[in-house]
Amino acid sequence: MKFTAIIVAGGSGMRMGAEVPKQFLPIGNKPILMHTLEAFHRFDRTMEIILVLPQSQQQYWSTLCSEYAFTLPHRVVDGGETRFHSVFNGLQQATGHYVAVHDGVRPFVSAEVINRCFEEAQRTKAVIPVIDVYESLRQVCDSQLSVAVDRSQFKLVQTPQVFEANLLRSAYQQPFNPLFTDDASVVEAYGATIALVPGNRENIKITTPFDLQISSALLG
Amino acid sequence: MKFTAIIVAGGSGMRMGAEVPKQFLPIGNKPILMHTLEAFHRFDRTMEIILVLPQSQQQYWSTLCSEYAFTLPHRVVDGGETRFHSVFNGLQQATGHYVAVHDGVRPFVSAEVINRCFEEAQRTKAVIPVIDVYESLRQVCDSQLSVAVDRSQFKLVQTPQVFEANLLRSAYQQPFNPLFTDDASVVEAYGATIALVPGNRENIKITTPFDLQISSALLG
Repeated sequence: MKFTAIIVAGGSGMRMGAEVPKQFLPIGNKPILMHTLEAFHRFDRTMEIILVLPQSQQQYWSTLCSEYAFTLPHRVVDGGETRFHSVFNGLQQATGHYVAVHDGVRPFVSAEVINRCFEEAQRTKAVIPVIDVYESLRQVCDSQLSVAVDRSQFKLVQTPQVFEANLLRSAYQQPFNPLFTDDASVVEAYGATIALVPGNRENIKITTPFDLQISSALLG
Repeated sequence: MKFTAIIVAGGSGMRMGAEVPKQFLPIGNKPILMHTLEAFHRFDRTMEIILVLPQSQQQYWSTLCSEYAFTLPHRVVDGGETRFHSVFNGLQQATGHYVAVHDGVRPFVSAEVINRCFEEAQRTKAVIPVIDVYESLRQVCDSQLSVAVDRSQFKLVQTPQVFEANLLRSAYQQPFNPLFTDDASVVEAYGATIALVPGNRENIKITTPFDLQISSALLG
């Protein structure tokens, strides 16, 4: 059974003078994105790893790989206009029977969670890792009004989102819809049911300075 | 205008051999609870600070205060059976016109957020700080089914929850209801509307080893 991981590292452009996209910032001794690729490689050394990166960032990534002597086998594929288009592009190159789509800025996914998602996908075809909501939750009705909701009925969604490759490919034939916020929503729109498995709390998406700050702690 | 902060440090009991409740664990150079009290004292040095603590933990707290030469003025009040009963007890001692109820294990509340809550409470009588949901969110319908929901319609609730003292006292005359998950829900059940103001992301509730780990990073 062959597995593919599509690592999506959109980030913002990299025109001269622009800020370095988050996925290239170092935590510990190397860029975030290298930690992320390693998490999948550690789980399965025979896994196909596809890195989807905006064309404008590929030269820089290549330089980083030399600089850090990063030799983990992976293929680089052009990013698209949106995450949907990026995953679509990655899927064209994927040859595994099961495909994990994972955020490039989630380096702390555990091997247990990756394993759990692939295992469950072999039973149910479509799986996402989720964790509990750990604060009280309110639904905002309008600018003035909000109501308390029962947080135990809600889950926070992480990646990797793992699918049978053919199902995911078929789902991605649908026309793009701005309501597609993650791969589960694409597959769901196609009519499939999404199974939930427990994620790991450390598997944060690094998008703010706050996240960067706690990332260093998580590495230590 | 006089302000009161009721700091609720329930935690679990402290029978011999039991684990030390989270609020007493050190982060940086002193126990979490001391950081929390200091956050309010820093905001307003004339503020009345009431610490609600289970009776079984008060001796230990007193020892800690000596050990750490912690002289910040505060009154200790007996905790109750539930959070509701603890806040009720604290309220009996509160003399401020506006009362903030805050979790003892949230040491990272910013002075800006405390200020914002008290300011807004003077206009609207009942205020809670909230932050955006920073992951995709799903609502679980039953063990098999879940649906994606629009996370922008939801907010994560923090403390301090700040109220006009008389309103809060009246609301706490209601009989206890297990649906009271925080002070806002008590005041809401009494018929008041809750205003939302932006919280600060660092203002985490320290309840798991993961939270402890990131706390050290936030202090650094």
